[in-house]
Amino acid sequence: MTTLAIGLLGAGRIGKVHATAIAATPDARLVAVADAIPEPAAELAAAHEAEVRSIEEIMAADDVDAVFITTPTDLHAELIEQGALAGKRVFCEKPIDLDVQRVRDCLEVVEKEDALLMVGFNRRFDPNFMALWARIHEDKAIGDVEMVSITSRDPGPPPLAYMVRSGGLFKDMTIHDFDMARFMLGEEPVAVSAFGSALVDPAVVGPIGVDSAGITLITATGKIAQIANSRRATYGYDQRVEVHGSLGMARAENLHESTVEFAGRHGYTRAPLMNFFLERYMPAYRAEVATFVHAARHGGPVSPTGDDGLQALVIAEAATRSHLERRVVEIGEI
Amino acid sequence: MTTLAIGLLGAGRIGKVHATAIAATPDARLVAVADAIPEPAAELAAAHEAEVRSIEEIMAADDVDAVFITTPTDLHAELIEQGALAGKRVFCEKPIDLDVQRVRDCLEVVEKEDALLMVGFNRRFDPNFMALWARIHEDKAIGDVEMVSITSRDPGPPPLAYMVRSGGLFKDMTIHDFDMARFMLGEEPVAVSAFGSALVDPAVVGPIGVDSAGITLITATGKIAQIANSRRATYGYDQRVEVHGSLGMARAENLHESTVEFAGRHGYTRAPLMNFFLERYMPAYRAEVATFVHAARHGGPVSPTGDDGLQALVIAEAATRSHLERRVVEIGEI
Amino acid sequence: MTTLAIGLLGAGRIGKVHATAIAATPDARLVAVADAIPEPAAELAAAHEAEVRSIEEIMAADDVDAVFITTPTDLHAELIEQGALAGKRVFCEKPIDLDVQRVRDCLEVVEKEDALLMVGFNRRFDPNFMALWARIHEDKAIGDVEMVSITSRDPGPPPLAYMVRSGGLFKDMTIHDFDMARFMLGEEPVAVSAFGSALVDPAVVGPIGVDSAGITLITATGKIAQIANSRRATYGYDQRVEVHGSLGMARAENLHESTVEFAGRHGYTRAPLMNFFLERYMPAYRAEVATFVHAARHGGPVSPTGDDGLQALVIAEAATRSHLERRVVEIGEI
Amino acid sequence: MTTLAIGLLGAGRIGKVHATAIAATPDARLVAVADAIPEPAAELAAAHEAEVRSIEEIMAADDVDAVFITTPTDLHAELIEQGALAGKRVFCEKPIDLDVQRVRDCLEVVEKEDALLMVGFNRRFDPNFMALWARIHEDKAIGDVEMVSITSRDPGPPPLAYMVRSGGLFKDMTIHDFDMARFMLGEEPVAVSAFGSALVDPAVVGPIGVDSAGITLITATGKIAQIANSRRATYGYDQRVEVHGSLGMARAENLHESTVEFAGRHGYTRAPLMNFFLERYMPAYRAEVATFVHAARHGGPVSPTGDDGLQALVIAEAATRSHLERRVVEIGEI
Repeated sequence: MTTLAIGLLGAGRIGKVHATAIAATPDARLVAVADAIPEPAAELAAAHEAEVRSIEEIMAADDVDAVFITTPTDLHAELIEQGALAGKRVFCEKPIDLDVQRVRDCLEVVEKEDALLMVGFNRRFDPNFMALWARIHEDKAIGDVEMVSITSRDPGPPPLAYMVRSGGLFKDMTIHDFDMARFMLGEEPVAVSAFGSALVDPAVVGPIGVDSAGITLITATGKIAQIANSRRATYGYDQRVEVHGSLGMARAENLHESTVEFAGRHGYTRAPLMNFFLERYMPAYRAEVATFVHAARHGGPVSPTGDDGLQALVIAEAATRSHLERRVVEIGEI
Repeated sequence: MTTLAIGLLGAGRIGKVHATAIAATPDARLVAVADAIPEPAAELAAAHEAEVRSIEEIMAADDVDAVFITTPTDLHAELIEQGALAGKRVFCEKPIDLDVQRVRDCLEVVEKEDALLMVGFNRRFDPNFMALWARIHEDKAIGDVEMVSITSRDPGPPPLAYMVRSGGLFKDMTIHDFDMARFMLGEEPVAVSAFGSALVDPAVVGPIGVDSAGITLITATGKIAQIANSRRATYGYDQRVEVHGSLGMARAENLHESTVEFAGRHGYTRAPLMNFFLERYMPAYRAEVATFVHAARHGGPVSPTGDDGLQALVIAEAATRSHLERRVVEIGEI
Repeated sequence: MTTLAIGLLGAGRIGKVHATAIAATPDARLVAVADAIPEPAAELAAAHEAEVRSIEEIMAADDVDAVFITTPTDLHAELIEQGALAGKRVFCEKPIDLDVQRVRDCLEVVEKEDALLMVGFNRRFDPNFMALWARIHEDKAIGDVEMVSITSRDPGPPPLAYMVRSGGLFKDMTIHDFDMARFMLGEEPVAVSAFGSALVDPAVVGPIGVDSAGITLITATGKIAQIANSRRATYGYDQRVEVHGSLGMARAENLHESTVEFAGRHGYTRAPLMNFFLERYMPAYRAEVATFVHAARHGGPVSPTGDDGLQALVIAEAATRSHLERRVVEIGEI
Repeated sequence: MTTLAIGLLGAGRIGKVHATAIAATPDARLVAVADAIPEPAAELAAAHEAEVRSIEEIMAADDVDAVFITTPTDLHAELIEQGALAGKRVFCEKPIDLDVQRVRDCLEVVEKEDALLMVGFNRRFDPNFMALWARIHEDKAIGDVEMVSITSRDPGPPPLAYMVRSGGLFKDMTIHDFDMARFMLGEEPVAVSAFGSALVDPAVVGPIGVDSAGITLITATGKIAQIANSRRATYGYDQRVEVHGSLGMARAENLHESTVEFAGRHGYTRAPLMNFFLERYMPAYRAEVATFVHAARHGGPVSPTGDDGLQALVIAEAATRSHLERRVVEIGEI
């Protein structure tokens, strides 16, 4: 296969991000776009010289090698299964589903079909987090990993319409941090403790009533990860990871809008943080798509896998229970 | 009273720190030093032109206005009571005792005698943490406090002899962070979750087997504090506080040994952190003593009070149970 | 004109940079490439689906709206004149020529033909320097500009073959800093003092024997600019601008390879700087091309102009004399 | 000699600084204070349990081992000579005199008497600049020194009364930077170029009309030092030194009032710089006095010497001429 021909399922905000990333990838091209609403599909298709087709047409098409699933979450698992059965390489935005059992069932289909499935934890591909991971897990710069601290704050809450279907903060937002914690720890958490609160805006807090949270994970060997979340940060999109080990500490700092600093009577002022994920993580989305395209064209293994998607969801489920029941939840329970 | 005449009970490491701080305080002078071991008492007394006396002599002396209790922890409560009954102003190093009930009994004596008692949470007096507190609680720079993150790592573990009597990490080390969390939150925690591990040195890990920990506190209104602790930090004494609120974020950064930065083939390298508490917190110890001396001479209220000492211990007890029993512990249980 | 059709004259390193930037510009397309050496021209043309043509063919072509001059410097002035006479919009890399009188003659032709000419001082388009300029000259954040400090160090010396024809450090390297100084000062320098040395590598130091320099400019109202140059920086491509004014100071800091910081026994280490101009200034090259394309399509004024190219060269000539004759040189002399 | 007995000549602002530093030095004590104005002498003497005496009495006294000369500048040379002839160890604030020949005559007397003379370039004793010097000249971290950049800006202009007698910016302010440049270069400058302006406040600009300046020095081997000066900095006392060499770059950064940083809608704001030299350089003054006391008690060599004082003044004279005559001035001329 010279070029990977891609069908995009879902032409919303995140679909556009992936279309842009695909356009920047040398060995891939977008051939078809599907969306329940005609306008965005038509617009996106036009912008990329692709066709508008139905999901069914894309799944059945001989000229489509891979599908990108960027629909609302409740269709993810079904479309993964359809893609796997149709012999497509499948890229799916996180989460696979909000229900753990549904994800397990879906992954069984994927396995039976021996399908290639990559799950969209874009942050693993952020150049700074990749460099941090390499310092820790390749260079072994900090020796044995002991503790991970993740700060993850959005500039503001998502629309209420999104939140009511999102499964709550632990499944729609912290799930990225759970994946990052697993990625940096290099071990599976065995227990979770989560305290959540509604501090930002009681009106748009969603089903489990949490817009701010402090979560702790522990692994079987005693490594600990702490996550701080908020749906509010006046100073931009706050995305930091710090890892402490036996030989030292390594961290990836935030990205500011510019390097300009002003000094005056009130002190030294740097620019706010990049705001929001499109600016901050665009290089990550491009690297993610390039990784998928390479694996899809050459048949190599992909990462993060469906199982990575499952594990992060299991932790999110445990965190949700921990918060709601005010107790430590063992991962084995889920 | 023109000058506050002070008797020092305990001539060990922390006793010397306080003697130095007293010497730097204009309206105070050290008149007597007591210690079970004669040499350090004699040395410290000589260095400050004070007398060596027994604890009983100091308590009975007319020429001693105040006592500084810097003995091993197990004598603290008893000596506070003696001081209170003897009409002395009392400064006592943290913790008052390792046993919550013993502290409560001791504070009853203090209250009945209407004695002045200040507890040594020196970090409240660190100029940077004071500036941080003022930005938050006086200037209201970040609006309503929502989340507090405290990083507190020692360069290395204390001697085993200390650890076996210390009550464990939550009572000997995190207790400072619990006080800092209360100070910055401006509210009382109502529940605690603590995960602890032995990652640094299994040989010197002490009674509860913890040298690394991730702790979360939550208040009645849902404010959250996270604490990261380790008895190891190769890069110095890591002491950071970050507070997030409705209008922004404020933090106090670490202190480095110098401001020198070197840039070469491998990047930009700054100096390690100040190592250890004598360097980092000496200005705090001086400000703490000055505050006590001022209150003792002019009769004003002191802070932190005996009750602050009690509350931090109660949280430490709850954290210890949380770790040992792997559950969320409500403060009301203690 | 819907899309600006561009002919590229010169398929060397900097020609490739501009071809890439043109490819990323929505309303422009590369139609032809010329180079004295066939292979690079063919390669670059193929990569961008353009044709290989001779310079003469490009100048005469009806389907070429604009030319990008990225040949060796000694052809710049001649090609600008040809382009102007042929009715092309002209973008020319700095410098227009090494000889001041030749530049003046060339600009007379441009003026007589009323041709559009933009000179390639790419750093003005760096997002950070643009943000710095806006803070100073639009927001007036620092009040009246008083002093400008520019640090500009290359990771290593260019090839000897380049250096012997470059006119020396002041004309091949500092010329960018002279333009930046004029841009930030908002006034013309009236005198120059330059001290140059050969400290890096005596073997490749070029005609005027300078690879390290300290230069000072002063304007008629007494504003001062200082420039520090070196053809060596072990830690990357060092590009900083700091501006001091009556109300404060503003600066644009360097760009590091990543935001990762490691802390260990020897201190805190950040990544080296981006190395080299392709990485550091690629966003600037793109913005520069977009600006040219916009002006060429809509007929607006361009900046930097040919006169900006002339003024920077005049200062470079004055600096060269200042160094060689060890005296302050008034700009009016040149 | 067990304790060095010191007579202080001059009880003004800088005299008080030294009295405080002497009080903090274990092996020194202030025994006498002289000042033309009785009140400050009496106050300072009382504060340090010293006597008020006349200069003549101090010079003649058997119980005075050393004198600190902190009078107005025009008395320095005369008092150094008196001290040398009276067999006192002499510490003198910079500059020795504003006139180069007067300094040379004075140093001849010092040499003939074989007297110990130390000149007060306090910045050499700043812990950060000392650490920087050690990295460069002991660790050889940056290889061969190539270029030095010094930024030195005062928060505001000194009183007019001071300025009219100070000899102008190059002799009263830049003289510190000339000493720092010599200290960091490790070589003598052979030529100077200085551009000065009156940008801050034309009313208080002093005899040579300069409150802002850009100065460049070059040594015989071609090492270059650049100095940026201003009598205004809204953000505090700006004191930075950066040194670039064959293997890298090292610098000492500014000191801020605290480590607190606030992040909000407008970005990240750190505290202003320490303001002013009493805060910033108090540790340097203490280290300076300790160094002098040690040398005076043990008879070792001192640094900075009278010759260091002379060399810095010679450069300042050359810079003054360079500015006034708008030309490069060779040090050999002076």
